[in-house]
Amino acid sequence: METIQYNLPQSRIPRAWYNVLADLPKPMAPTLHPGTLQPIGPDDLAPLFPMSLILQEVSTEREIEIPGPVRQVYAQWRPSPLFRARRLEKALDTPAKIYYKYEGASPAGSHKPNTAVAQAYYNKVEGTKRLSTETGAGQWGSSLAMACAFFGLECKVYMVRVSYDQKPYRRALMEAFGASVTASPSTETESGRAILAAHPNTNGSLGIAISEAVEVAAKDPDTKYALGSVLNHVLLHQTVIGQEALEQMALAGDEPDVIVGCTGGGSNFAGLVMPYVGRKIKGQCGARIVAVEPAACPSLTKGQFTYDFGDTGHLTPLVKMHTLGSTFIPPGIHAGGLRYHGMAPLVSHVMDLGLIEATSVQQLDAFAAGIQFARAEGIIPAPEANHAIAEAIHQALMAKEEGKERTILFVLSGHGHFDMQSYIAYQAGKLENYDYPAEEIAMALAGLPAVG
Amino acid sequence: METIQYNLPQSRIPRAWYNVLADLPKPMAPTLHPGTLQPIGPDDLAPLFPMSLILQEVSTEREIEIPGPVRQVYAQWRPSPLFRARRLEKALDTPAKIYYKYEGASPAGSHKPNTAVAQAYYNKVEGTKRLSTETGAGQWGSSLAMACAFFGLECKVYMVRVSYDQKPYRRALMEAFGASVTASPSTETESGRAILAAHPNTNGSLGIAISEAVEVAAKDPDTKYALGSVLNHVLLHQTVIGQEALEQMALAGDEPDVIVGCTGGGSNFAGLVMPYVGRKIKGQCGARIVAVEPAACPSLTKGQFTYDFGDTGHLTPLVKMHTLGSTFIPPGIHAGGLRYHGMAPLVSHVMDLGLIEATSVQQLDAFAAGIQFARAEGIIPAPEANHAIAEAIHQALMAKEEGKERTILFVLSGHGHFDMQSYIAYQAGKLENYDYPAEEIAMALAGLPAVG
Repeated sequence: METIQYNLPQSRIPRAWYNVLADLPKPMAPTLHPGTLQPIGPDDLAPLFPMSLILQEVSTEREIEIPGPVRQVYAQWRPSPLFRARRLEKALDTPAKIYYKYEGASPAGSHKPNTAVAQAYYNKVEGTKRLSTETGAGQWGSSLAMACAFFGLECKVYMVRVSYDQKPYRRALMEAFGASVTASPSTETESGRAILAAHPNTNGSLGIAISEAVEVAAKDPDTKYALGSVLNHVLLHQTVIGQEALEQMALAGDEPDVIVGCTGGGSNFAGLVMPYVGRKIKGQCGARIVAVEPAACPSLTKGQFTYDFGDTGHLTPLVKMHTLGSTFIPPGIHAGGLRYHGMAPLVSHVMDLGLIEATSVQQLDAFAAGIQFARAEGIIPAPEANHAIAEAIHQALMAKEEGKERTILFVLSGHGHFDMQSYIAYQAGKLENYDYPAEEIAMALAGLPAVG
Repeated sequence: METIQYNLPQSRIPRAWYNVLADLPKPMAPTLHPGTLQPIGPDDLAPLFPMSLILQEVSTEREIEIPGPVRQVYAQWRPSPLFRARRLEKALDTPAKIYYKYEGASPAGSHKPNTAVAQAYYNKVEGTKRLSTETGAGQWGSSLAMACAFFGLECKVYMVRVSYDQKPYRRALMEAFGASVTASPSTETESGRAILAAHPNTNGSLGIAISEAVEVAAKDPDTKYALGSVLNHVLLHQTVIGQEALEQMALAGDEPDVIVGCTGGGSNFAGLVMPYVGRKIKGQCGARIVAVEPAACPSLTKGQFTYDFGDTGHLTPLVKMHTLGSTFIPPGIHAGGLRYHGMAPLVSHVMDLGLIEATSVQQLDAFAAGIQFARAEGIIPAPEANHAIAEAIHQALMAKEEGKERTILFVLSGHGHFDMQSYIAYQAGKLENYDYPAEEIAMALAGLPAVG
């Protein structure tokens, strides 16, 4: 029998998260206070986050120990499986080997619980009663809702309007876990009301929903805010993916030549690749590392690397990142988790250092890849993950064309069980590609704050 | 760290299915030809099934080797995880230990691929071009659609009308795998048209959909029929569940005192319990084995053990089983996979022999148990599986009341990602219990064929 699973026992769940900041050849640009434009200190963030997460945000320790109760919850689905996609390889008739690290086996169906559980844990320990957050596709919201149920916290989710309408079942899942879910922009917050006044029929966006969730946390001492991507501590928690993958690829006796992940805020990509980036810095890894973003929201491939706000309402600190402008509202593509104007500062930084590269994929190509993958591998992928699959298939077909062997590793960030409406639309021919929204992005970039 | 996963490597996928017929103290009653009422031979079934499956149906060999290509596909998700539900135990504050064998980790989300893959394989080997089938909740239809995609077969699914309407995303999944899906009863078949003439607004039922799928297969030499439960060979393929569970419980160092599964046609229950039933026959297992059915469709607890047709249109052979009468159309409960008038003859037989027992659960109690489980364990269960959970929780609470230790093992047959509409309805207070439909069942039983 050919091996297609490379599994590790519960005892091999990593004991520490890997912090690439310890190994960077050049430090990241500091985060700036939105009022003073000076570098912020830990106390500035204390209204929003528990101190342990704030300290992780700026830590340069290489290994940050995973608390026992977090590892205990991880054991529900970690180590996650690494699969060799042998049936897909046969369908493509390629000499390439394709491996995928599958994060959809988590109960919430994606990589997001890796950080949701950690964030809920640290908040619980520091006395938080309630967490507020935003969600795009709903992967993050349902993961945080689950983690809050496990640790006995209340959970308030602002769900981007277009996803709220497209994905009633994702909302139902959050509610089954006991969370309260509101469509964003809402009339519950000042920032929501301001957006609704200017754009009454808006699809919403992650940037807007972040403003609402941050506002709620800032105003209530019992409520903290939780973010599902972008920040250093979030990406840190995801590095269990890459650490396990390193061990599983060794089990398989292979080294990746190309490493691929889809990028919205950057967390599933960073989770897989940062342990490899660390090795690359040390000259121990020669792989190409490729971020794949939607052509409709191309922060890495078309954005500017500069200071911008994390949210549309300009309540968050300023971070240096690849951005399309924080007032840009991306088209309503079905990969809701990729509809974010900026890219994680850490991912942006390693891109700027030449350690990774980026490409973009159109919506229809992403769905075509997803269907091809489902028929070969059985798993129906999340629309976000289809972007990574499209690039993995592209790499495999290039290898075939060139007659070369190639080992491809990608992260399949989640399943698409709650995204079937988008597959219905795709199969009915109702989805479209989006041209690069040049004019809107130019306008949003023109409005960037004059900093840095 | 407390162990909560008891996982086995790919190499421990069972090499043979376990056939309890080899160990039964009394043989099963023969299957009868619907025309002659005489025991049928293999040739009578040849229009519907490939010969290898027909021979498995009557085999009394204890071990039936799993073909290499089937084990190879099993490796996508098998051995499936066995979990200790430690968070649920804490939530219940019970001295009982609760283990669950989780079949929702398969790509189609349930135990059904265990037999779908085997059936697609044998059909492919024997030259079948197309498979026709019925599906209730959609778990079976999507599993067969996936298996057909893997082996290059066409797939035609008759989906029970109430599920077709309630579960558009399950249908979309089947279509993503390339299957053709029709609501049943349909106007495509004689049996469908006959039912529609008599009951124009019917919810449909598994019994009706079976008639349609059988009719299509009987009329086309390139098409065979595939059934997702009830028959011996289907239950046989599911025994990988119980064989793995035996090994995983040994890893955990525990022996179950109570073994629980939900029953519609009986296949996930049989899959878990038949290896234990075999041991019970040999005096090697003292566990109580409990089948849990919906109060609205209680074949084991309220039906007669007698000869009846497998379908409503009376196209199938007659089998001796616990039945509510093949013309009984169950109420539209959301556990669509349990809406079947009869029980697998093998499950009925071991019930008759006193090797297992049965109980029933009301719809609202089942959903309450499912929500409690989701908040503790993170997995949102299929409505069918909620019946098993309700009984497992009941057993754990009884143990608490009695102050006794008790080890409970149940099979969680699938996740509920495609059943969120039923959770929305439940959480909105729109679901109801159903009284035992005494009158309809009495009428259906009065119409039983006078055989046996």
